[in-house]
Amino acid sequence: MTVTVAIDCMGGDHGPEVTVRAALEFVRKHEDVRAILVGIEEKIRPFLSNADESRLVLRHASEVVTMDESPAFAIRTRKDSSMRVALNLVRDGEADVCVSAGNTGALMAISRFVLKMLPGIDRPAICAVLPTISGHVHVLDLGANVDCSPEHLLQFAIMGVSLVGAIEHRERPSVGILNIGEEEIKGNDVVKRAAELLKDSGLNFVGNVEGDDLYKGETDVIVCDGFVGNVALKASEGLVQMLAVFLRQEFGRNLLTRLAALIALPVIRHFKHRVDHRRYNGASLLGLRGIVVKSHGSADIFSFTNALDRAADTVRTGVLERISLRVAEQARQQVQGMA
Amino acid sequence: MTVTVAIDCMGGDHGPEVTVRAALEFVRKHEDVRAILVGIEEKIRPFLSNADESRLVLRHASEVVTMDESPAFAIRTRKDSSMRVALNLVRDGEADVCVSAGNTGALMAISRFVLKMLPGIDRPAICAVLPTISGHVHVLDLGANVDCSPEHLLQFAIMGVSLVGAIEHRERPSVGILNIGEEEIKGNDVVKRAAELLKDSGLNFVGNVEGDDLYKGETDVIVCDGFVGNVALKASEGLVQMLAVFLRQEFGRNLLTRLAALIALPVIRHFKHRVDHRRYNGASLLGLRGIVVKSHGSADIFSFTNALDRAADTVRTGVLERISLRVAEQARQQVQGMA
Repeated sequence: MTVTVAIDCMGGDHGPEVTVRAALEFVRKHEDVRAILVGIEEKIRPFLSNADESRLVLRHASEVVTMDESPAFAIRTRKDSSMRVALNLVRDGEADVCVSAGNTGALMAISRFVLKMLPGIDRPAICAVLPTISGHVHVLDLGANVDCSPEHLLQFAIMGVSLVGAIEHRERPSVGILNIGEEEIKGNDVVKRAAELLKDSGLNFVGNVEGDDLYKGETDVIVCDGFVGNVALKASEGLVQMLAVFLRQEFGRNLLTRLAALIALPVIRHFKHRVDHRRYNGASLLGLRGIVVKSHGSADIFSFTNALDRAADTVRTGVLERISLRVAEQARQQVQGMA
Repeated sequence: MTVTVAIDCMGGDHGPEVTVRAALEFVRKHEDVRAILVGIEEKIRPFLSNADESRLVLRHASEVVTMDESPAFAIRTRKDSSMRVALNLVRDGEADVCVSAGNTGALMAISRFVLKMLPGIDRPAICAVLPTISGHVHVLDLGANVDCSPEHLLQFAIMGVSLVGAIEHRERPSVGILNIGEEEIKGNDVVKRAAELLKDSGLNFVGNVEGDDLYKGETDVIVCDGFVGNVALKASEGLVQMLAVFLRQEFGRNLLTRLAALIALPVIRHFKHRVDHRRYNGASLLGLRGIVVKSHGSADIFSFTNALDRAADTVRTGVLERISLRVAEQARQQVQGMA
């Protein structure tokens, strides 16, 4: 089976310079993939000069959704944008998955408009994998929805649990809700009501978890609204960057510390690789009738290639079908539970 | 001048075992401080057996506000709690500052009830100092207010700027608002409207900042609602703990890496000390007619002592008077600007 990835080459802070180069790397690495490079032809072409183009197709799209355009504006006017055309390819079955580093709000809105939602799900959510002390955790939403109702948080939980169940073949993955205290009385009204819904959902709900629990690895899935999730994710990225600077400064302090650095280099390199957030790039937009992977806007080639890898993996493991089944099953149980 | 600190000895995860021992350490370290240990006498007494009690006073309070009590319940019924009595001491001028590691919501509510707000400020906000690549940043609110209006965020900005102006003698500290994108169209309605208020406030407003900007050090003050701030702060703490585990694992991998660890030990120790969140323990509750410092609930002795140090410093530098003046001045400018 060949996996065909539609790439929104104009999205992200760096555009084709990163996206097209990453696509070349991606196609070089995997024999079972094809990439459709969607975007303004004359901006993409220069990066393809010496490429073996047998598994690369260029699809011209005349417009670009910029980072500061509102979702409503993008959906109404950017009908020939690289983002929209790439999503159309998924809808029409010409591609298995769409990858974009573009405007998150627009990507969510256009995905929803073009691909439609799974039955029982109101809004797409961005789900990413984060490393933890004992493995990893799936967290959603990470920025697609800035205002969520308790019902939305419940749907995020169902989708997250379905995803983990599908890709890790787990029976009852645990799910927690991000809050500012473990006690039930803590938090805002939305979170409190969502916790009540989750308690009655039949899911393996572990209750409130706090910010530091994100990295403990005691919960399989953590749900939160997209505003909080996005801030927590980016704060973590910023913190890792700061710590890297501090580590460099400490090891560069004097001749003795520089010697220590030389000796500790392999260890430090291993450590840095382990916490490199670029390795975790590529979040899934869940809840749609199609697979969409969102890359970090500032992704470099290494990082964007990881998002492409993740997208291909998602297709290979049949995540969409499994999630659809699980969501339908979960929804059926919900209805039965309420009856 | 002697600084008198009223300590809520029953608050926090560990109670007197930590708070009283930290108080002993605190009094031993500083010649110019006194501590009033507030709480259940027979729980505090055992930790005082061999102490020089000349600058320690025990004040019995028969009740305890537990971590899971609602603020409304605590305020209504816990009239002889260690928290309430410690705050009364500040109100009555018997202490200069109150320090508590107890229930945050209750501390905020009781502080507000006992000490009252500064004119022009609706709610207290928790303001802490976080390390950044180039220094530090003051962030508020970190958990006192889970639902904030745009006007509250504006007030947080005024208080934060006043604090930095007061303690760092800066004319126009910069202030940003935490959001999920730098573009003006991003974020939820509250944040968007708050940004508009901030633009018209006459403050040195730099616009939206994102989660990773928390650690960049490009802004003096960052405001956010307490839910987001609390999650970001705790996520950061959890991440640092995870990285410490990873670092230990990498250095413990084999004989060679253990040798490297031995050589790199002084550097790693320096690094760990630099990012130890316990050093930053002690957040100020701003907006009140009195000084209240909130310690992390899970604080150990080292950490709680730092909160006590911070509290004493706040008194020594006359932060309350300076903030009161600045807030009044800022409010006056606001009114003029609107007229």
